[in-house]
Amino acid sequence: MDATIKKICAGDVRMASRLIRDIEDKIPEAKAKIKKLYAHTGKSFIIGITGAPGAGKSTLTDALIEQLRKKNKTVGVLAVDPTSPFTGGAILGDRIRMQRHAEDAGVFVRSLATRGALGGLSQSVGNAIHVMEAMGKDIIIVETVGIGQQEIDIINHAHSVAVVLVPGMGDEIQTMKAGLMEIADVFVINKANRAGAMQLHTELEGMLNLSSKATDGWKPPVVMVGDAFEPQTFAADTAALTNKIEEHQLYLQESGKLTERMHRKAMTEIHDALRDSLFEPIVNSLTTSGEMKRFAEKIKNRKTDPYTVAEEIAQRFFKHQEEK
Amino acid sequence: MDATIKKICAGDVRMASRLIRDIEDKIPEAKAKIKKLYAHTGKSFIIGITGAPGAGKSTLTDALIEQLRKKNKTVGVLAVDPTSPFTGGAILGDRIRMQRHAEDAGVFVRSLATRGALGGLSQSVGNAIHVMEAMGKDIIIVETVGIGQQEIDIINHAHSVAVVLVPGMGDEIQTMKAGLMEIADVFVINKANRAGAMQLHTELEGMLNLSSKATDGWKPPVVMVGDAFEPQTFAADTAALTNKIEEHQLYLQESGKLTERMHRKAMTEIHDALRDSLFEPIVNSLTTSGEMKRFAEKIKNRKTDPYTVAEEIAQRFFKHQEEK
Repeated sequence: MDATIKKICAGDVRMASRLIRDIEDKIPEAKAKIKKLYAHTGKSFIIGITGAPGAGKSTLTDALIEQLRKKNKTVGVLAVDPTSPFTGGAILGDRIRMQRHAEDAGVFVRSLATRGALGGLSQSVGNAIHVMEAMGKDIIIVETVGIGQQEIDIINHAHSVAVVLVPGMGDEIQTMKAGLMEIADVFVINKANRAGAMQLHTELEGMLNLSSKATDGWKPPVVMVGDAFEPQTFAADTAALTNKIEEHQLYLQESGKLTERMHRKAMTEIHDALRDSLFEPIVNSLTTSGEMKRFAEKIKNRKTDPYTVAEEIAQRFFKHQEEK
Repeated sequence: MDATIKKICAGDVRMASRLIRDIEDKIPEAKAKIKKLYAHTGKSFIIGITGAPGAGKSTLTDALIEQLRKKNKTVGVLAVDPTSPFTGGAILGDRIRMQRHAEDAGVFVRSLATRGALGGLSQSVGNAIHVMEAMGKDIIIVETVGIGQQEIDIINHAHSVAVVLVPGMGDEIQTMKAGLMEIADVFVINKANRAGAMQLHTELEGMLNLSSKATDGWKPPVVMVGDAFEPQTFAADTAALTNKIEEHQLYLQESGKLTERMHRKAMTEIHDALRDSLFEPIVNSLTTSGEMKRFAEKIKNRKTDPYTVAEEIAQRFFKHQEEK
């Protein structure tokens, strides 16, 4: 076995961290490593935690780590920062909280930001999860801000998804809920001591009862979690949340739905890899040759249109041109 | 000229609406129409408005419509809902506000949701903008929730971008700001009567002074907009905002930077069209043939890995296989 792979499978934190960093930086060798690593992956249970900015996801993740450690589960955490295509590196201020687990060998926390465009983040997330799986973590928590399509791609790497909502976050959250309804396996009403928590609970239950999920075998529970500044209730609430997620894990296993989720996950990974192996090489070669720039110029001057350009490119690169 | 195109260019609301709906539903004929329409596009100025959920973007857009109408500009508005890959249709509750412009022939408001996956939304946004351009709208406002990569793809269709922030929205907004710094041409501190507005203003100015934008020819102004429930100050504030955006438009035109933005826009459109013409047909044909499912099964059982699958597919479809 490759030395790096061997070390990662033995839980070597430094090697694992380096590979995750290489994945993030899109270093070509990382891809070869992941291919070798792949046979050693797929045994962890992946929990996705998503919600709007400010919903308190990091604090909840931190509490989940604590609860899972009490149950002697080893935990990997991947904090995904979708804002950093711009900064090239994240300002992960509130993730510092999780540092208190830094001394615990059973916990491995890493953050991941986007470099470059074109949907590379979902693939990096998938691969960073694989590194943690190879390390042998029982549970891997993927935390991401959940709003757009990309975040959904990310959450498709999880087996079980907790959606975090907060009372009183305005109109658009209402809109979001409809979307989040489809991906949520567990709902968390965080900061549930705030005004409007019970109303949000009622609304959610109402939406759930109307949705297809009501009769689906698993109706997503709504867990209320109080303020983190009241340690006792917070600990009790997050323990309840942990139990609900474990119940869902059991349900997935016993109903055979885990297989479905694993299938969905594999499909997501094929999509990601195709983008990487098919789409990006074409875009890169056209960019390097300067053709992309010339195409853009012609489009700008309305001498052609993007579809015609794309068809031209497709004809050049494709063996079988699709019927139009 | 095609009858539909002719009508749209004459400002026909019904034909334009239908084409936008066809674009959203990915009806193949819509693509042919857009190709024909393309020569009649590119003359409008596109404003992007982005910000977190609950930042008050719709209310601001509504106010911008009013201000622009006072200046006799015709306005198209595209409200993008990135949450609806799930619902298949948006719950655009607060967009109802904009209905008060429904009687005004100089205003055309449409919303757009995602159908299907794989980044189709950005392309739909680009094409819906083209429909409004062909209608002859002077200004087109694209309103979207700004967080992930997809939202950035969307905002790349705009010439000028206003980023809306609200005081007191928690830690993660801080993180967002770093990302938003890169795309913002104008910052809006909305609900500026709230506690923390001045602090946010100071922070933003500090970040701007440190960024490359401070010496770039256009330092993004920070516009404070008070509560919409105080109509007089709100009208004055949004008038000031409108002026700042117009100043930016003038700056882009005079500095030659509008050409750069148009180039960026064309690049985005090529990417979108390539995804549509190259990437999706492959995925679709593999899905239809059932091969995708078999590949996923093999990956699930760790008999292969996504990269190997993607390379196999690439070899089959590609004329020139990239060096690995």
